[in-house]
Amino acid sequence: MKVLYRNDSRTVIRFDIGEEFPGTLANWCEKEKVESAAIVAGIGMLENIEIGRYDGKEYAREIVQPSSEILSLQGNVSMKEDKPFVHLHVSLADEDMTARGGHLFSGTVSMTIELVMIELSAKFVRIPSGGTFWRLDIPQE
Amino acid sequence: MKVLYRNDSRTVIRFDIGEEFPGTLANWCEKEKVESAAIVAGIGMLENIEIGRYDGKEYAREIVQPSSEILSLQGNVSMKEDKPFVHLHVSLADEDMTARGGHLFSGTVSMTIELVMIELSAKFVRIPSGGTFWRLDIPQE
Amino acid sequence: MKVLYRNDSRTVIRFDIGEEFPGTLANWCEKEKVESAAIVAGIGMLENIEIGRYDGKEYAREIVQPSSEILSLQGNVSMKEDKPFVHLHVSLADEDMTARGGHLFSGTVSMTIELVMIELSAKFVRIPSGGTFWRLDIPQE
Repeated sequence: MKVLYRNDSRTVIRFDIGEEFPGTLANWCEKEKVESAAIVAGIGMLENIEIGRYDGKEYAREIVQPSSEILSLQGNVSMKEDKPFVHLHVSLADEDMTARGGHLFSGTVSMTIELVMIELSAKFVRIPSGGTFWRLDIPQE
Repeated sequence: MKVLYRNDSRTVIRFDIGEEFPGTLANWCEKEKVESAAIVAGIGMLENIEIGRYDGKEYAREIVQPSSEILSLQGNVSMKEDKPFVHLHVSLADEDMTARGGHLFSGTVSMTIELVMIELSAKFVRIPSGGTFWRLDIPQE
Repeated sequence: MKVLYRNDSRTVIRFDIGEEFPGTLANWCEKEKVESAAIVAGIGMLENIEIGRYDGKEYAREIVQPSSEILSLQGNVSMKEDKPFVHLHVSLADEDMTARGGHLFSGTVSMTIELVMIELSAKFVRIPSGGTFWRLDIPQE
């Protein structure tokens, strides 16, 4: 990965072939003490992608093996049990360009990812909220 | 809903189970006098969703009943007949994670929505432009 | 096209029926000397759309003829061989609202596009990186 721009809370990072995503981003956030951010764009390609669909209690999971175009990435960074947690939903195009997607657990960068993040002076935390759901919140004053 | 962050024109709002969306957001914009904004991310889940496809004259509409992952939300807030109007396009994943989407008329939050908005010191208005199309514009000087 | 807002690095542009996209945007960037930007939202409709899927060596290309809702647009602007280059991935809804998408080569605006861009004081360049892949980068110091 390479940070291409980081100024006025706007951050653009390029991820490279073979890197785990979003694990590499979470590690960078931890090192840089980024605790709250909005992820507003991310295009490129992933392979060996684990996506999920929440059924109200837990995630149904599916592996998308082939290298796939990332049509969109949206989400945020918050603190979950004292570590930066990257919550992302992804839309992917399969080999005939049909779109599929869900919650992004993990994938491997197969070409590049060009990510746009807005770092926020917030105190986002994840609060256990029943089942496996952790809501995005801020500490009570 | 809960405003989790609002600073330097960047606003993050969480919507909760049972809330109408984007009606709840439009009401908040009216109360807070937010007349112009860009909506740049929104992930979570909706159910009883009405989406549409514009055929050049009017919208073909469809109801997506089951709780569905929101893969992306993009759009804006402008003033239409003196009230804040939320224009959003949504991409949803159905039960086998295939993506569908269109213009978002309405839905009910079935888990959470984590929305990212950039409030703008603009004067966005909707101007009737033939048929049911209202273009995004600014007042003539 | 009409620039509806341009302040504090945030730019909202409306594109109109018959305009080429993103060619019209690239031309505007050249005229306005916009060399680096994040494109974080874009909704509207396109027709005669050429999208592609990168196979690791080159793009498989496909034409989507009918007027289609743009569900999302994400990408960036950088300098490629001394001209602004607009890199965008698009998600489109076809006539039954199923989503398809990929790299956006070109299309014709069939209703409107409402585009949100963050202009960056960066020095984004495209560097040839093997095959037809040009990575997003910044000049070495």
